[in-house]
Formats: sequence, structure tokens, C-alpha cells
Amino acid sequence: MTTTKRLGKQTVKLQYPPSIISTASIVGKKEGEGPLKDYFDQILDDGYWGEKTWEKAESKILRETVIKAVTKANMSLGDMNYIFAGDLLNQCIGSSFGIRELEIPFFGLYGACSTMAESLSLAAMIIDGGFADYAVAATSSHFCSAERQFRFPLEYGGQRSPTSQWTVTGAGAVVLSNQGNGPYVTHITTGKIVDLGIKDANNMGAAMAPAAADTIFTHFEDTGFIPDDYDLIITGDLAQIGKEITEDILQKKGCNISRQFTDCGLKIFDNKRQDTHAGGSGCGCSAAVLAGYLYHELTKGSLNKILFIATGALMSPTSSQQGESIPGIAHAVTIQNTLG
Amino acid sequence: MTTTKRLGKQTVKLQYPPSIISTASIVGKKEGEGPLKDYFDQILDDGYWGEKTWEKAESKILRETVIKAVTKANMSLGDMNYIFAGDLLNQCIGSSFGIRELEIPFFGLYGACSTMAESLSLAAMIIDGGFADYAVAATSSHFCSAERQFRFPLEYGGQRSPTSQWTVTGAGAVVLSNQGNGPYVTHITTGKIVDLGIKDANNMGAAMAPAAADTIFTHFEDTGFIPDDYDLIITGDLAQIGKEITEDILQKKGCNISRQFTDCGLKIFDNKRQDTHAGGSGCGCSAAVLAGYLYHELTKGSLNKILFIATGALMSPTSSQQGESIPGIAHAVTIQNTLG
Repeated sequence: MTTTKRLGKQTVKLQYPPSIISTASIVGKKEGEGPLKDYFDQILDDGYWGEKTWEKAESKILRETVIKAVTKANMSLGDMNYIFAGDLLNQCIGSSFGIRELEIPFFGLYGACSTMAESLSLAAMIIDGGFADYAVAATSSHFCSAERQFRFPLEYGGQRSPTSQWTVTGAGAVVLSNQGNGPYVTHITTGKIVDLGIKDANNMGAAMAPAAADTIFTHFEDTGFIPDDYDLIITGDLAQIGKEITEDILQKKGCNISRQFTDCGLKIFDNKRQDTHAGGSGCGCSAAVLAGYLYHELTKGSLNKILFIATGALMSPTSSQQGESIPGIAHAVTIQNTLG
Repeated sequence: MTTTKRLGKQTVKLQYPPSIISTASIVGKKEGEGPLKDYFDQILDDGYWGEKTWEKAESKILRETVIKAVTKANMSLGDMNYIFAGDLLNQCIGSSFGIRELEIPFFGLYGACSTMAESLSLAAMIIDGGFADYAVAATSSHFCSAERQFRFPLEYGGQRSPTSQWTVTGAGAVVLSNQGNGPYVTHITTGKIVDLGIKDANNMGAAMAPAAADTIFTHFEDTGFIPDDYDLIITGDLAQIGKEITEDILQKKGCNISRQFTDCGLKIFDNKRQDTHAGGSGCGCSAAVLAGYLYHELTKGSLNKILFIATGALMSPTSSQQGESIPGIAHAVTIQNTLG
């Protein structure tokens, strides 16, 4: 038996923190008109990208993003020991058809919009544990495939509620290695399901906020860190309403994160100009913000230590139709430029 | 950086092999009338188990199976550091609603019917890597929820093709620990997606067979083991047709596993008497066979070393409607009573 790396209830401290040696992001047109447009590797002209369906387009976006991330690391797909990936579509076909031809041993994940932190957590632990030299963590989402699956066919032209979020079209991929000079994944706090009874599928932010607050609070308890240890605490994707609730819950527990707290769903769109209501969502949102903006700021040194928390709403249209509330989950990952 | 545990292309050898210290299985009525009926912990009278919908029943089956496995280990849910779980339902609601109240840090997985081997692989690596003392791996499926989601509403009474498989109603859960005296998880071969172009969603066995053969062949290449090193090589769930194709493909590559090869989907039902056509399927099938029959035979010593390979068909009704073929995947895990 090896030394335990556990800290407190839900956190592990990596013994040999893996480096993020490369990232890539590909996003849709609307995302490419938003405030983070200069950070993405590629911006698409339309939602189909030459494919016949949105689902096939989503798979292509994920595939090309993974290839781009591996290529940017000056490596080949065959060097990757594992890929951890998932998406929002039924049976995760965005991922399975996306990586079908890549011939990389594959662990399929489902964590709804928490999937980027889930894939990053598992990839980092698998490398730290000595099972892999290189691993890819990736997720995708697509506004059009998500709308028709979870809400209404786009052709229906239904009105969106003010609390609703806009699913990002895009993907992000991260290549992790046991070699490298950072940014390092150093701590991982894995969330448990929290469900306070919210049933409104047009208010995912409120449903996920208690889970986000729970994981963030537990992270500080487990590690002994304080909010000011971080340059940025960024959730994905609570958007406006969920972010405020999360801040409130934490404030009531004596934990003030307002100075460094923001959300990927608020960063990726200019809500007023782009009419995205509460903000962005979808696993592609936090993935593209991490792989684009956050990675850039970390490698440039304008951010040195961040807490990345991806949040998921683990419901389905079937569970909502059966009167169930929305279980939330959030996983947190510490990424920093220096060790020790 | 720690010592690598990699063997060959896709296999890892665990350095401190975790023990399976407890298992539990709960199955439906039909499964409880099959050849393995004496090995399950509980057999249900009907598909609802007091719930209003089949989906809620599936969640209850998973939840109660996990609780039973933890209780049988004389432990409490709070002792479990992680749970790895997934199922076949859209957005994996079988698992998320199943474990919602358990308050265990949760990694949601989607590997279709490969999920039991996927959850076992990740749980074992996370323990071996020093991240957990105890972890649960669990999956479920339900005939009625799967039929209406993937095929036809049961009320329609459609005829089943002779190549079709019967989704098992049931769940299996395994508790792994870094303490214990076996059976040990010692080797893990993680599959990549293999898709030879099969499009018939009523012939999943044929779609998954190439992936099963690929993972089994790679396992022997990577480890240097030969089939006779194993008392049993058991896939789940290729059933009759997939099993024969897998054997044929391996035979053509010079690998004869016929002496010790069987399939969970063939063991769980008496196909002739129970009219299950090609045999059983669903992630609950391999999970319940592993947690019931296989664990019993291992602890009794009538099996000492087995290769457990769970196989998944990573399609959805949407991908089939869009003319896509069925990507298959298979993950293999070596479980044995002695080390060294």
C-alpha cells in the first residue's frame, strides 16, 4: 500500500503534480464574438462545420480539438495513454463518435457540465499514480444539439426564460503529462451530489449553486487554504443567478470569495450585448474557457494559482417529467504555476 | 514522478493491488429464475419495487445494492472515499438519482455495458495510486427503462429479433480497499473504440465483438499471459452471437480461448427456457454476475484467476437514426486470489 494523498474529507493532494503541457479550444460563431474571442484556437462560421447534423458537428469539434491539443504539444495521438471525455448528449455520442478514430484508450464520463473538472481530476490522478505518462481530458457541447435534446426543437422558436442559460458550442482539450514545468494540477476536491429540491430546468444555476458552495467550502476546510490564496476562483457554469447564490451561501458560512470569484458562463459571453440571459453553460463552456483564457493567463503569469470548479446538473428530461428535482454536483481542481 | 506501472500499449499492473472486500447484487424476477439465482443477494418480485416509474425503480435498485455491499463489508457509507457509477439511461439518471442521498464523492461514468469494468478499473487505480482507502464501483440496468428508451415502449409489444439481447434488470456493487486478502485486482487493460461498421441496433453482440477481441488480444500481448493462465475469461455482455465472433476473431489471430471463455449474458439466463434470444445484456448483467456468481466462486476458491471483460456499444437512438454505425469498447480486468 502506498502513502495516502488524502486531505480531509473529499480532497487529495497530488504527490507528483502533473503539468498541463498543452490545450486547445474550438468554438462556435457566437462564442467567437464574445469577450474571450482572442483566446480560442479556432472559431467556426456555422454550427454544422460541413456535417449533416449538429450531433456530428459536435463530434467533429471534439475530435479536432483533441487533435489540435496533442499537435500543439508536438506529440502524436499514439503517445496519449488515456483520454477522459464526456458530453451532454444521450449516451455521450458527442465523445464516442468524436474520438472513435483516435485509437486512444478511452474512459467515458458523464458529469453534465461538471465533466471538464471530472476529466481533469481523473487524468491528473491517473498520471500522479504512475499509470500514464500522458493523458487527455476533453469535453464538448453544442447549443443546437443540446436545445433539441433537453428543451425544444430550435425550429419551434420558443421564448427563453430570463433565468435560462445559453449552451456553448465548443470544446476544450487539455494534455497532461508527468513531465513539464507547469501549470500544475496540485489539489482535487471531488464533489458529492447535493439536491436542495430545485425543479426548474430553466434555472440550472440555482440548482447547481448549493453543490458548488459545498465543494468550495469543503475544499477550504480540507486544504486549509483561504480564498486569498487564489488569484481566481472560477466556476463553470453557474452564470449570473447561480454565482450570486453560491456567493451568498458561502458568505453565510463565513467564507467570502467575492474578491476573486467569477464564472466561465459569465466570461464567455457579453450577456447584455449577446442576449444570453443568465449566461453561458454546457460542458464546452468551462472546457473552452479553461483551455483558452485560463491556460493563457496562467502561462503568461497574470494568474498564478486558480481554483477551477465545474458544476453539473444531473437531471434528464425524463427525470424532470417524472417530477424529480435536479441533483447538482461540483468538482474543484487547483491549478498553479509553482510547487511547494 | 512515480514509477510507471505500464505494461505494453494499454495495460497497467497495479503495484499495491486492491482487494474486493465485499460485493452485492439485486436483480429482477426473471434474473431470479435463471441459472445464477442462488448467487444474488436479493430477487425482486416486480419491476417497480414500490416506485412509480421504472427509472425510479432502477435508481432504487442501484442505491440499495450499494448500501448492501457497504453494509456487508461492516462499514458505513461515510467510509467510502469515492463511488464510480454509471448506467444506460439518458444522462445516467439511474446512477445520479440512485446515489443522490449517499453523500459519497461521485465520479459519473458512461461506458454503456462496459461500465462495470470501467468503474472497477478506475476505482482500483485510484486506490493503488494512494488517493483512496475505500471505493465503490457499481452499475445498474433495467429491462423496462432500457426498452422504452432504446427500442420501443413495452406496451407496443413489438417482436424481438433473434439476434437481440435481453437487458438485465439488476445492479451490482463492489467495495474495493487497500486493505484485505483478495480477491485482488492486479491488471487493467483499457480499451479503445473499435467500429467495424455494424449498424444493426438489434445485434449489439456483433457490434461489440471486435472491441472485445481487440482488448483481449492486447491484454495477452501486453502482459505476456496466455489463456491457460486463467481459470475463466468472461465477457459481459456479448451473448451468443458476439461470443462466437470474438472467439473466431481471436482464433484467426492465433489466440485460442475456447477452453475457458464464456459470457455473463449467457450465464445469467437459460436462453432456451427463458426466451431471451441471444442472451442477457445491460450494465447490470455483468455487474450482477461479477458481484454474485464470480465473486462467490473466487472467494470459495473454485476460481482463482479470471479475466473480466465488460463490453459496451457506444451508440444512441439518435446516432442510429442518423445512419451511424455502432462503436464498441471493451475494458479488461484481471482478478485473482493470490499475488506474485
